[in-house]
Amino acid sequence: MKVLVAQLDPTIGDFPGNTQKIIQALSHARKEKVDIVLFPEMVICAYPPEDLVLHGPFVLACEEALQKIVPHTEGLMAVVGLARRNLAQGEKALLNSAAIVQNGKIVGFVDKALLPTYDVFDERRYFEPGIEFKAWEWKGKKIGVTICEDIWQHAGYVGETRYTCDPVLEMQKLKVDLFLNASASPYQFQKPDMRVRVCQKAARTLKCPVLLCAQVGGNEQLVFDGYSVYVDSAGKLCQLGKGFEEDLMVVDLNAEKKPFHFEYDAIGDLYHALVLGTRDYFRKQNFKKAILGLSGGVDSALTACIAVEALGKENVYGLSMPSRFSSSSSLKDAEILAKNLGIRFDKVSIDPLYDAYLKSLNPLFEGKPFDVTEENIQARIRGMLLMALSNKHGYLVLSTGNKSELALGYCTLYGDMAGGLAVIADVNKKQIYQLVNWINQKQEIIPPSTIIKPPSAELRPGQLDTDTLPDYAVVDAVLESYVEDCLSPEEIVKKHNISKEVVLDLIHRIHLAEYKRRQSAPGIRVTKKSFKVGRRYPIVQKWM
Amino acid sequence: MKVLVAQLDPTIGDFPGNTQKIIQALSHARKEKVDIVLFPEMVICAYPPEDLVLHGPFVLACEEALQKIVPHTEGLMAVVGLARRNLAQGEKALLNSAAIVQNGKIVGFVDKALLPTYDVFDERRYFEPGIEFKAWEWKGKKIGVTICEDIWQHAGYVGETRYTCDPVLEMQKLKVDLFLNASASPYQFQKPDMRVRVCQKAARTLKCPVLLCAQVGGNEQLVFDGYSVYVDSAGKLCQLGKGFEEDLMVVDLNAEKKPFHFEYDAIGDLYHALVLGTRDYFRKQNFKKAILGLSGGVDSALTACIAVEALGKENVYGLSMPSRFSSSSSLKDAEILAKNLGIRFDKVSIDPLYDAYLKSLNPLFEGKPFDVTEENIQARIRGMLLMALSNKHGYLVLSTGNKSELALGYCTLYGDMAGGLAVIADVNKKQIYQLVNWINQKQEIIPPSTIIKPPSAELRPGQLDTDTLPDYAVVDAVLESYVEDCLSPEEIVKKHNISKEVVLDLIHRIHLAEYKRRQSAPGIRVTKKSFKVGRRYPIVQKWM
Repeated sequence: MKVLVAQLDPTIGDFPGNTQKIIQALSHARKEKVDIVLFPEMVICAYPPEDLVLHGPFVLACEEALQKIVPHTEGLMAVVGLARRNLAQGEKALLNSAAIVQNGKIVGFVDKALLPTYDVFDERRYFEPGIEFKAWEWKGKKIGVTICEDIWQHAGYVGETRYTCDPVLEMQKLKVDLFLNASASPYQFQKPDMRVRVCQKAARTLKCPVLLCAQVGGNEQLVFDGYSVYVDSAGKLCQLGKGFEEDLMVVDLNAEKKPFHFEYDAIGDLYHALVLGTRDYFRKQNFKKAILGLSGGVDSALTACIAVEALGKENVYGLSMPSRFSSSSSLKDAEILAKNLGIRFDKVSIDPLYDAYLKSLNPLFEGKPFDVTEENIQARIRGMLLMALSNKHGYLVLSTGNKSELALGYCTLYGDMAGGLAVIADVNKKQIYQLVNWINQKQEIIPPSTIIKPPSAELRPGQLDTDTLPDYAVVDAVLESYVEDCLSPEEIVKKHNISKEVVLDLIHRIHLAEYKRRQSAPGIRVTKKSFKVGRRYPIVQKWM
Repeated sequence: MKVLVAQLDPTIGDFPGNTQKIIQALSHARKEKVDIVLFPEMVICAYPPEDLVLHGPFVLACEEALQKIVPHTEGLMAVVGLARRNLAQGEKALLNSAAIVQNGKIVGFVDKALLPTYDVFDERRYFEPGIEFKAWEWKGKKIGVTICEDIWQHAGYVGETRYTCDPVLEMQKLKVDLFLNASASPYQFQKPDMRVRVCQKAARTLKCPVLLCAQVGGNEQLVFDGYSVYVDSAGKLCQLGKGFEEDLMVVDLNAEKKPFHFEYDAIGDLYHALVLGTRDYFRKQNFKKAILGLSGGVDSALTACIAVEALGKENVYGLSMPSRFSSSSSLKDAEILAKNLGIRFDKVSIDPLYDAYLKSLNPLFEGKPFDVTEENIQARIRGMLLMALSNKHGYLVLSTGNKSELALGYCTLYGDMAGGLAVIADVNKKQIYQLVNWINQKQEIIPPSTIIKPPSAELRPGQLDTDTLPDYAVVDAVLESYVEDCLSPEEIVKKHNISKEVVLDLIHRIHLAEYKRRQSAPGIRVTKKSFKVGRRYPIVQKWM
């Protein structure tokens, strides 16, 4: 028996485009003489469609697209994910389903039983859980089909939820010969390994091969990494889909199992996730060109590298916007970087504008001294220059702030936070350095002085980030433990051996900066908990 | 039997402050010799705490605060809302509960059975539904207690959900003598009436008096209007709590029922909701002063009136920022308004800054003609000036855009959209005019010419909003039908007799502007569906 695992990159609500992709995969399947085609979760509308599913015509479009797909399944069994109406009883009027299509006929539907409602997932907002488990007969085999989360519970990797039902155990009762899972499971740092373990656990329980078809591609803030999985009945990893690109992976269940080696490059994958997230954010909105400020610092350097990889060097425009506080080495580094990347580069001094602002505002400043106001004015002039060029020439502005800065509010609203996409907003300072070193290992693109020099916003003479922030190693430790792992202050003190005073101060700052983050550009989520999608905290609160 | 309905305004996570409010209400109850005290839903931590409840110490703080409250209930039965741990089985580790405290002892808990997971509500993200229904004996009476949504299902007013359980019918089986509901039900335009009808429906089914205690106050983007309800066993409205302020409403169930007249002033309530939302947004963050741009237009005039009512005239600062495109009548109107309101007023021309930007940017504009870029530069200079004064003097910037503009993206990111709070972001143009006329009916505060003149952004010579937008009446009709009621294009064409082309164009623009709204300031939600909290649409999508 042969299965085509159709790891596709659909676009949310692009019914003609997604349908075409699906039909092409079915056509490929027939050429490859496979028996079964497995598509990702909700492949017809792409995941996650969010509140679009609350529009009747959107759900009807899903159902209609399915009807167009069905005739292309002659000789095949296809598992096609979609959102559909729940015509039976239940709280919610929709189901997250996979249509089971055999030889040109819909023979039934599998409805997702475990509906993740935590972090970036809101499925209980829309869907009624499936309650029926059955095996599908095809070419003499009993085939079990589940959707995404339904396979995770059994391995115990589910976040913040203690499901009372375990669909894998339901499949065990049915004695299935093959177990299929249609997924849309977002990338997060070091997750692909976990997905393999989840399939292995199911295979060992069911004593049958397990195939997981993953969505791939960026859908707004989420990146789906691909890496569809095939493990054999002993739980041995036999094949993985490509990472970060579409793949029509043909699995021959009867073929001899060759050993499969997979070395997981965590930093390389992080880089590819950011590239794919950026590329699809542009492509799916029909944008081509990006502009960003190049300060000579490590954050903008990394963002520029990612942009060039995602969009091509001819589509990236770097702008240097020096002031009286900029160091000559920073300016030089920005220029060298642009040259190394081969991108368009221009320079505009912000000093005349800065002076003009002070002249207009001084009568209203009531003689108060230089403070964060003047720093913000500089950052905001830069944001405005980028936005003006964006408006005039159709560039999308990339903002270059990292997660550690966003955590503490060490950034300027409408200034360096301005932009259409915050490429590295979910990457902490430690990972920033890992990424630039990873890039430079292949070829020295980023000037070493950019990497070596101590971080500075250069908004007042001789300023260093450490003037107002603790060391980034401390910031990142607290950030990870508090934001990603939800540890208590006491647990963080104990885990990292940081003083309680510093921990509480950092947690306080994280909450205080909520108002800034609320107005930040969308970012690409690459960790367990990003500051944008999947995190909901009040601005107005007196807890911390 | 006497009941104190403690309509309080708690702050999210303010355990000391909220606990003190609760204890004071219990002390008042003893003075008033009441038998029962009913508090709002989750009064201990305030609603909605969002992801704060995922922090163990936050939930423990709820439980500890309850222990502090318990000793203050001698001689009383108190119903005290809180989030607490779910120590039993179930998907979620938390419960949305009301502690039933009698005479210094916790006798049990009521757990919310129906967990709204739609619009602004995410309760399935955190809570396990309650499954047990029982009556509580107190002073010879059988008392039924439910939480918020649990009373709504019976009246059929629940959004996007078809609950299979009806807690009111469960109470009917228990033959309760009195029915209490602890609520935190956000204001929306024309909702208080509905809340009364929900209680009436329950009273008629249960044939007993119904008391609903509502949270009051602004918690970030949500405003809770109060108006706690007492209806007698015949379903007659006997008493309402105050609207938009705290109220310790004593209800004597044995007293003769006097007829209660309530005239609902929809526009007046909308105004009070915006005032309370603004006041609490400031107060709960320890902010005092607001600054806003006064253009001479109707939106900034309305925002200024609300700010003065919320914060006091001594705390509001209006800034006129004219350009070469500003009309002299607009400038005069801004000045008159400031004088009428008695607020500080200053004027800064943006022309020198505008010229400075063009000088810096012209070499990079490649000779392209005046377009939206130059318009945005003007709006952004204004945003920057306000932000600079905000930074220097500690004002919070109020942005003044309305819902119709936000819907279509007729506003400038980092320009007029900049600010800490978007006061009227959920008020459409029609309601803006209703509100300013309502204000002027009492006293002419807003210059009539502000109200009469056709809307214009004044960003190019002779510009009118209608140059690029359909009439606001058309915009608002589509906005309401599509965004609030989720009607299909065909249904909208039919309902409003607008051409399909216009309807589709407006819907397309609404989706296209998603990227701007994602970075807009928090607004005060006053309708069934605001653009910020409670609405989740992808920026990257090809549906519309």
